[in-house]
Amino acid sequence: MLVFVLNAGSSSLKYQLMNPVIKKVFAAGICERIGIDGVLKHEYGDGKKLVINVPMPTHKEAISAVLSTLTTGEGKVIDSINDIEAIGHRTVHGGEEFASSVLITPEVIDTMKRLSPLAPLHNPANILGIEICQELMPGKPNVGVFDTAFHQTMPDYAYMYALPYEMYTKHGIRKYGFHGTSHYFVSNEARGMLEKKQNSRIIVCHLGNGSSVSAVLNGKCIDTSMGLTPIQGLMMGTRSGDVGAGAIQYMMAQENMTIDQTLDVMNKKSGILGISGKSSDLREVLEGMQNGDDRCRLAVDMVAYIIKKYVGSYVAALDGIDALCFTGGIGENASLIREKVCAGLDSMGLVIDPVKNNRRSSSARDISTNASTARIFVIPTQEEYVIANDTYNIVSTNR
Amino acid sequence: MLVFVLNAGSSSLKYQLMNPVIKKVFAAGICERIGIDGVLKHEYGDGKKLVINVPMPTHKEAISAVLSTLTTGEGKVIDSINDIEAIGHRTVHGGEEFASSVLITPEVIDTMKRLSPLAPLHNPANILGIEICQELMPGKPNVGVFDTAFHQTMPDYAYMYALPYEMYTKHGIRKYGFHGTSHYFVSNEARGMLEKKQNSRIIVCHLGNGSSVSAVLNGKCIDTSMGLTPIQGLMMGTRSGDVGAGAIQYMMAQENMTIDQTLDVMNKKSGILGISGKSSDLREVLEGMQNGDDRCRLAVDMVAYIIKKYVGSYVAALDGIDALCFTGGIGENASLIREKVCAGLDSMGLVIDPVKNNRRSSSARDISTNASTARIFVIPTQEEYVIANDTYNIVSTNR
Repeated sequence: MLVFVLNAGSSSLKYQLMNPVIKKVFAAGICERIGIDGVLKHEYGDGKKLVINVPMPTHKEAISAVLSTLTTGEGKVIDSINDIEAIGHRTVHGGEEFASSVLITPEVIDTMKRLSPLAPLHNPANILGIEICQELMPGKPNVGVFDTAFHQTMPDYAYMYALPYEMYTKHGIRKYGFHGTSHYFVSNEARGMLEKKQNSRIIVCHLGNGSSVSAVLNGKCIDTSMGLTPIQGLMMGTRSGDVGAGAIQYMMAQENMTIDQTLDVMNKKSGILGISGKSSDLREVLEGMQNGDDRCRLAVDMVAYIIKKYVGSYVAALDGIDALCFTGGIGENASLIREKVCAGLDSMGLVIDPVKNNRRSSSARDISTNASTARIFVIPTQEEYVIANDTYNIVSTNR
Repeated sequence: MLVFVLNAGSSSLKYQLMNPVIKKVFAAGICERIGIDGVLKHEYGDGKKLVINVPMPTHKEAISAVLSTLTTGEGKVIDSINDIEAIGHRTVHGGEEFASSVLITPEVIDTMKRLSPLAPLHNPANILGIEICQELMPGKPNVGVFDTAFHQTMPDYAYMYALPYEMYTKHGIRKYGFHGTSHYFVSNEARGMLEKKQNSRIIVCHLGNGSSVSAVLNGKCIDTSMGLTPIQGLMMGTRSGDVGAGAIQYMMAQENMTIDQTLDVMNKKSGILGISGKSSDLREVLEGMQNGDDRCRLAVDMVAYIIKKYVGSYVAALDGIDALCFTGGIGENASLIREKVCAGLDSMGLVIDPVKNNRRSSSARDISTNASTARIFVIPTQEEYVIANDTYNIVSTNR
C-alpha cells in the first residue's frame, strides 16, 4: 500500500511517499516559504535531489506541486495520484480526545478545531493539510496521527498541574506531551532489543531542535517532560524549557513585556541560542566550546545536566530502568551529550561504553558496557514510518 | 551569650530568645495581625503560654511589646534588654552578594534594599525589623542570616535559566533557592549521622507550608528546587510549584487575568489547596483521602510523586546518594508522604522501614532498613538555632 505522509506546518510542509508494509520510501521532501514565494526540495530514487521554485501563495499550491512532482517530470516516482491509497497526517494536538491514531471524519476535524486554542500554530495548519488532500485526492482515506496520543496513558498525578482544579475542568489545562510518535517508535524498538520483555522500564530522550523525555512502563507512557504546550521541560534550540513562574513575572516587569512577547522570547530567543549567544544549533555551540567560549560551555553543560536530571526523575518514577534511549538529531549524533548525560549514572545501573558511544553509525545500537545492568541505546527515530504504518492499519481495518 | 532571634514578615513576626552555646531557648513566640490589631503569643519557662492583645499599628509596637514581655510581668525571662547581647535576623534574599551570614552595616542594608525587587514581600520587612532593633537596642550588634546564602555554591549550569543570557547579567534572573538555613542545618546533622564522612551525597526535603528539596555534596549545596522566587519546584500548601510557561500564558488568556493576578492565584490558591479544593493543610487532605475524596487522593499522590521525582533527579546530579533527609512540619510528621516518596526507590539504594517510619518521635532518627545502602533520616529542623549560632560566631569574631 502506498501512503502519502504529510506534516503540514504553518509556513512549510514535509512529505514522504512510502510503502509501510515493505518499509520502502519512494520519495520525500519539503515545501518551504509557503505564503512568501515557495521552494520545493524533492528527494527520490536512490538519493537523487531536485530543487524547484514554485509559487506557493497557499498550502494548496504547495501540495499540488508535490503531487505533480511525484507523478510527472524528472522526480516522478508514480504514474498517477490514484496510486496513492491513503494519506497519513501528522496532527499535533489531540487533547484528551484521541489516545490513538484515527480515520479523519468531519467530527474529527470539528474536534481538532475545538482543540486549536491549545496548539494555535499547529492544529489549523494540520486541518488545512487534511482539507486540501480531501479536495485534491477525493475519496482517498485520511488518517490523523497525533503527537499527544501516546502520552494519554499518563496517570492523573503525572499530568496534572498543581493549579486550581477548575483550570483543568474548565480549560483543559494539564500536561499533554508531544513527540508521541517518536517516543512510541523508539520505546517500542527498545522493547524489542531488550532481553527482558515484561514490565520493561524505558526512558526515551528525543533530542532535536525540540526535545522531550518520556518514561515508558511496559509500553505505556507514564510521564513526559513537555506540558500543555511544547515549551516545557528540556532546554532546546531556542526554547527555554522549565522556568519558574516568578522569573517569568519578574522578566515581564523588568523588560516591560506582555506575556505574549515574553513567551515569544522564551520560544524563539532562549535555550541553546539564548545562553550561548551564538547559535541554536548544538553543533556550532559544541565547536564554540572547543574554541574556549565559556557561554558555549555553559549551554552544553546545561543541556546535558537538565536531561540527566530528567533521566534521574524518571528512573524514580519507573522504580528502576531497563533501557535509556537517545534519538533525534542531537540524540543520534551528539556523542558528547550522551556521555555527559550518562556520566555518574552508574548508581542507577547505567554505564556508557566510550568506544561504542563514539562510533558513528546510523543504525540502532547498544552503547552500554557489559557491566551496565541497564542498556543504553541509540535508536534513529522514524516518525514518518509510524504515521504510514498507523494509516495502513487503520485503512485496512476500516475497509 | 543571649541572642534575640527575629524573623520579621510583612504582617507577623516570630522571635526566640536563646543561648546558642548551651542550645537553650528561654522564650519564643509570635506577633500576629500587625497593622490590623495585634496579638502576641508568648511561650516561656517550661512550656508556659501567654496570649496578650496589644495594639500593633506597626512592627515597632510589636517588637516593643515582645521586649517588654521578655523583661516584665508574667512572661518575664530576663531582667533587662541589656542582657541581650546580639540580635540575629532571618533575612530572605541575599542575591549573589551574601554567601554566608553577615554583621549588619549600613552597606549591608543598602544591598538588601537593592535586592528588594527580588523579594518584595520579605526584604523590606526584614530591613524594618533590623532598623527597629537598632533603634530599640542601640549599640547591640545585628546579624543577617540569609535564606539564599547556603545555595550560593550551586554551579552555573544548575542555577541558570535557559533564557537570553542578558536576563541574568541585566536583571540577576537566575535560581537562588530558599530555606537555606534549614537545608544547611539538616544536611550538616545528616553528615554527622553518616559513617561515611567524605564526599557525602545528601538530599534534604524541607516539607512545610513552603517546601523545597536540595542536593548537598560534601557539605555544599549543588542544586535546589526553588528558583528566583519561592514559587518554583515542589507542590506546596497553596503554591503551585513547577508549571509550564505555556500553561501560564493560556490560563491568563482564558481567565482574562494579568500576570500579577495569575501569580497571586499560583501563590495563594494552588498547590494542595487548589487540587483538593478542601484545605492547604496536608493533614486535612490526608483525612479527606481516607474518607474517599478523590481530589484529596490526587493532591496527596501529586505531592509525593513530585518530591520523588526531585529526589531521583538529585540522585542523578549527585552521582548517587548516601542519605535522604525529611524535615519541616510535613517531612517530620507525615509518615505516609515519606512512605510514598520512598516507594520504589530501592533501585537507588533507598529502602524505608515501615515500622521505624510510623514510630512517632521528635528526635533525629534513621528510618531505613539495614538492607538499605543509603540512609533515610527524619531530622527536625532548627532554623532559629542556626541563626542564633551564626550570630554568636560572627559577633564573637568581630569583637
